[in-house]
Amino acid sequence: MAAQPPARPRRLLPLSLGLFQAALLLFFALFVTYGDPRAEDASLAAKQLYGTFPLFQDIQVMLVVGLGLLLTFLPRYGLSVLTHNFLLLNFCTQWALVLQGLLQRFHHGQIQLELRSLLLAEFAAVTVLISVGAVLGRTSPCQLLVVAACEVPAYLASEWVIAAHLGVLDVGGTITIHVFSCYFGLGVSKALFGRGRQLLHPKETPTPRSDLTSLLGTLILWVFWPSFVAVLCQPGDAQHRAILNTILAMSASAVTTVVASSLLEDGRLRPGHLQNGSLAGGVVIGAVADMTMPPVAALALGSLSAMVCVLGFRFLTPFLRRKLMLQDHCGIHNLHGLPGILGGVASAVVILAAPKDTSRSPFSQVSSAGVNASEAAVGQWGGQALCQAAGLAVAIGGSLLTGLLTGAMLRLPCLARPPEQHCFEDSLNFSIQGQAESLELGGTMEEGGLALKE
Amino acid sequence: MAAQPPARPRRLLPLSLGLFQAALLLFFALFVTYGDPRAEDASLAAKQLYGTFPLFQDIQVMLVVGLGLLLTFLPRYGLSVLTHNFLLLNFCTQWALVLQGLLQRFHHGQIQLELRSLLLAEFAAVTVLISVGAVLGRTSPCQLLVVAACEVPAYLASEWVIAAHLGVLDVGGTITIHVFSCYFGLGVSKALFGRGRQLLHPKETPTPRSDLTSLLGTLILWVFWPSFVAVLCQPGDAQHRAILNTILAMSASAVTTVVASSLLEDGRLRPGHLQNGSLAGGVVIGAVADMTMPPVAALALGSLSAMVCVLGFRFLTPFLRRKLMLQDHCGIHNLHGLPGILGGVASAVVILAAPKDTSRSPFSQVSSAGVNASEAAVGQWGGQALCQAAGLAVAIGGSLLTGLLTGAMLRLPCLARPPEQHCFEDSLNFSIQGQAESLELGGTMEEGGLALKE
Amino acid sequence: MAAQPPARPRRLLPLSLGLFQAALLLFFALFVTYGDPRAEDASLAAKQLYGTFPLFQDIQVMLVVGLGLLLTFLPRYGLSVLTHNFLLLNFCTQWALVLQGLLQRFHHGQIQLELRSLLLAEFAAVTVLISVGAVLGRTSPCQLLVVAACEVPAYLASEWVIAAHLGVLDVGGTITIHVFSCYFGLGVSKALFGRGRQLLHPKETPTPRSDLTSLLGTLILWVFWPSFVAVLCQPGDAQHRAILNTILAMSASAVTTVVASSLLEDGRLRPGHLQNGSLAGGVVIGAVADMTMPPVAALALGSLSAMVCVLGFRFLTPFLRRKLMLQDHCGIHNLHGLPGILGGVASAVVILAAPKDTSRSPFSQVSSAGVNASEAAVGQWGGQALCQAAGLAVAIGGSLLTGLLTGAMLRLPCLARPPEQHCFEDSLNFSIQGQAESLELGGTMEEGGLALKE
Repeated sequence: MAAQPPARPRRLLPLSLGLFQAALLLFFALFVTYGDPRAEDASLAAKQLYGTFPLFQDIQVMLVVGLGLLLTFLPRYGLSVLTHNFLLLNFCTQWALVLQGLLQRFHHGQIQLELRSLLLAEFAAVTVLISVGAVLGRTSPCQLLVVAACEVPAYLASEWVIAAHLGVLDVGGTITIHVFSCYFGLGVSKALFGRGRQLLHPKETPTPRSDLTSLLGTLILWVFWPSFVAVLCQPGDAQHRAILNTILAMSASAVTTVVASSLLEDGRLRPGHLQNGSLAGGVVIGAVADMTMPPVAALALGSLSAMVCVLGFRFLTPFLRRKLMLQDHCGIHNLHGLPGILGGVASAVVILAAPKDTSRSPFSQVSSAGVNASEAAVGQWGGQALCQAAGLAVAIGGSLLTGLLTGAMLRLPCLARPPEQHCFEDSLNFSIQGQAESLELGGTMEEGGLALKE
Repeated sequence: MAAQPPARPRRLLPLSLGLFQAALLLFFALFVTYGDPRAEDASLAAKQLYGTFPLFQDIQVMLVVGLGLLLTFLPRYGLSVLTHNFLLLNFCTQWALVLQGLLQRFHHGQIQLELRSLLLAEFAAVTVLISVGAVLGRTSPCQLLVVAACEVPAYLASEWVIAAHLGVLDVGGTITIHVFSCYFGLGVSKALFGRGRQLLHPKETPTPRSDLTSLLGTLILWVFWPSFVAVLCQPGDAQHRAILNTILAMSASAVTTVVASSLLEDGRLRPGHLQNGSLAGGVVIGAVADMTMPPVAALALGSLSAMVCVLGFRFLTPFLRRKLMLQDHCGIHNLHGLPGILGGVASAVVILAAPKDTSRSPFSQVSSAGVNASEAAVGQWGGQALCQAAGLAVAIGGSLLTGLLTGAMLRLPCLARPPEQHCFEDSLNFSIQGQAESLELGGTMEEGGLALKE
Repeated sequence: MAAQPPARPRRLLPLSLGLFQAALLLFFALFVTYGDPRAEDASLAAKQLYGTFPLFQDIQVMLVVGLGLLLTFLPRYGLSVLTHNFLLLNFCTQWALVLQGLLQRFHHGQIQLELRSLLLAEFAAVTVLISVGAVLGRTSPCQLLVVAACEVPAYLASEWVIAAHLGVLDVGGTITIHVFSCYFGLGVSKALFGRGRQLLHPKETPTPRSDLTSLLGTLILWVFWPSFVAVLCQPGDAQHRAILNTILAMSASAVTTVVASSLLEDGRLRPGHLQNGSLAGGVVIGAVADMTMPPVAALALGSLSAMVCVLGFRFLTPFLRRKLMLQDHCGIHNLHGLPGILGGVASAVVILAAPKDTSRSPFSQVSSAGVNASEAAVGQWGGQALCQAAGLAVAIGGSLLTGLLTGAMLRLPCLARPPEQHCFEDSLNFSIQGQAESLELGGTMEEGGLALKE
């Protein structure tokens, strides 16, 4: 993509994206097929459809509608965040399908597509959607595509090491998705903005209305989060437990967020705390959701993660901005980083605390490296706990490294950052229809009041 | 909660809520467990999961997103209503889990948590979410929590009398939820505001935009209501019938609302009528949804309830405000009270009108007091109809009484009502981020026009 | 309805709609019943419930919430479009239930209602919801009801010819729903507005905020579209393939829309392109979704349809407006017409290109005219391809003809069009509550800025 200097920058987006679509078509034409319906595998896939499809739809709602709305707290950048979120989701899913196909399935000759492949590809896309939260508003669509192009293979590699090689148990993606994507995003932000101090942009300040749509996004994410955590669980008891644990954790974090925020703000609430803290329970519970633990553990983790998230917004984010010159526009470190680490540590503790004299393992989910995991399950509880810690370390280290490299790439001259005065402004990315006509009417309708003063 | 006079009022919310969370954790640690996956009960629960979970998610969307949005018709109070609705849902669900656990399951020693317990607890929460509609905007979050703390046990007691003791058939909660919550809310409102005449607050008037988001909430509730009515039905034919009856009733009430509203308003529509009338069919159908009756009955009930609801808004609400000094900010009497009573009466009529020479009972749902109900079914049709009427009377009487007591408690000095000039205003509950900065920019962005004139 | 000249026009809506509700009640009382739960059919219907109901709910969300929001791009007409969409959906479903009952089921004496009948009736309603997009904003609710009253029988007749008589394969309604509704709507528009040149109304221009809610509608439609395409498929392999094909096509059209729009707009995006182009993949894929074809075909069709849609908005719509004086307010020709024709042609090509030496048919869906279709399947591939083309021709011809007739009827004097200066304005259809009071406060709150200048 960087190899097209003669193209004017405004052509860079359609050309690179168009090229990618053409390559995708070629790849699918050559290698991808549906399973033979007469084969046993395919009919099995069709059967699994009825258990998976409703959860898949729930997750789609979360990513396309919920996450998109959550980002609309930027009052003049709503169209852009919804669109970038939507575009990145589709681009990353397609890109992950290609990479997954190449890496994991090529030994079959043909790549057989099924709903589960789409689901796994979408999980790769989630990491990108979270990461870009750190730099949203001050980046161009082309820069976001470069982030996506780099992060998807990095995620797949990290996930392979963590799940298949280390046998880490993490059914809801606490370590593999949330922790990874957070530190990748922070790495990108650090490398991109460098030591330049970015003041709070005036257009970054939410209005009551943009806070409302963002809160709506939170509520949608909150409702469907149990489907996200449970979709890859073993059907039956483990899935039931994963759903209940997630609901308990998220309910506790909703209430605790109100407690923590109103303590810090002298009896009132801060919208940003609510928008993020209520979801912290979903992040923290992922790694332990299907393990055998008492329900109180889910409640406690949910409460704790909400506290950590709110405290992070109040104290850590300003500190990191001042001391490390670290930009984190959406506060992904508070919602995904801190609760993610907490969840990773919790998974090790739950494994260590599991009753050792019983033959029942605390984890009914069989990871891709089934042998590793079940070996661990039989005797070496400490070993498995260590694996969880190692997985956490790999996720943090790997993501920071690849994120910094990706951020450095974003500084290439052909990928110009938007000028600061036009940041956080939809007109940067959209040609608003009939702007001329409506100006004759006296300013765009809704913002007449503001236009008067500018 | 009232026992903390030294705490400044602004600390009352976090302290009381924090204390509750701590007590909840303790309670769960001591008494609550998941079922043993090896036991038969638990594997049954896991199986039921696949039938119940999609409906459970639908109901969550209704309560968190749909009901929250419906209340955003207050144009400057949107963040508060969404947040209070969300907080109350979580608080009440947790509180109902505790009470249910104590009351119904304590004889097992341990309380076994499953999705169905969460569902029943959520039904208790629904009554609170409806009731507070009567006093929303002129109450502090602490007052709402007191309402919740009182109403949940009152509801559980009333529901126990109505369903278990009287054997009332009410699968969709017409009597137990809608009628109860309406008169509880009106009781609270009457006792809280007393004989003081409350004029219409200027910030209570919806704008076209707030009417739009509120209508959106209506549409979401409308779409998912069949799941709410059908979730507790016997799977199979009764559930199929409940779904169809609900869809028919809600379709009829949507069309009839337009007829009634445009008749009253000279050919135009009033947004408030649409927002409420379209849902009246879902309220009225609850008690009869799974009974054997011709489809036309569902249509007729839907039409009738929408008419009653619109007429209530036009004539009864102003009358009650003038004559009884009764505040009902959201019009819950028109949406839940009148259609609820209509539905209760209809259930008695349907039972009386059922073909008596057949062995088929008009009610395939077996209430918790199975014996009572089926005895009635065999011969004493009149008895069952009388039971429905008695249940209605219990719901109205019990809720009015407990509501009045709760409202009186809200007048305790430690639970100060917000000052009238700050009512219906988000800044009462939220510290809007960067308000100072944006004021420098010349008023909050979107309300520049208004700010100019204030 | 036209037979009430003495009624003042403002009474026409409630009177005609009220009369319709009364007639519906009578019809249901006389002829409609639920299946006997002891009969085998009914218990089968109850069983099918569990496969169909979640998809049915998804479709309801699409039509009520998604499509409604998509139309809110008109910034001062949001309440009206949401309400008209909702009213038409309910009216058409009821009207289609009556007609279907009369036409298809009358030979049973009684009409047995089940979820599937509601689903088919809702499909008839979809055509109306699409068609009115061409004339929205410049028509009164009464005119829209006339369109609905005429289009539902026209659709049912056309669908009967296309599916049952010609044996056209079209599981997702590409030909029967999208192509039909588009040309019906264009016919209505042409006949209604005649040769009068309609300039772009100033209130037709979207604002950034109205574009945002409209895009939200697109995203909701995008997420749930696979349910719409798959709901009538044979369960099992065909349904699995239909879901995957739809997801692939819509993903490709989302990315390609960004490519095409930013190429045409010099690197920026036009909100209208995104709102429509992203959905073109769902329109195009309907006729071939369940056929046996390589996944790359779904991707290619999705990309192609998005290109066609964006090009249509950029070049064809202005051309048709200038040359043919053809109004198409929502651009239904670009989203439903062009991709629909493309999908119809594609279905013929896929059938012709299917491997002829195998016994596997390219279409696993058995159309209502099973015999016709399977005869074709055995040997006459060319015949089936010809049938698809004939179906396309019938859909276009029949819809244009009936649409023109309907549009002519809308010019009857008793169905007065709203005056041009009040078009695209909610106050035409709504009596906004407390307008007087809020004017005293200084203009309606949110539009203070605009009010200043008018």
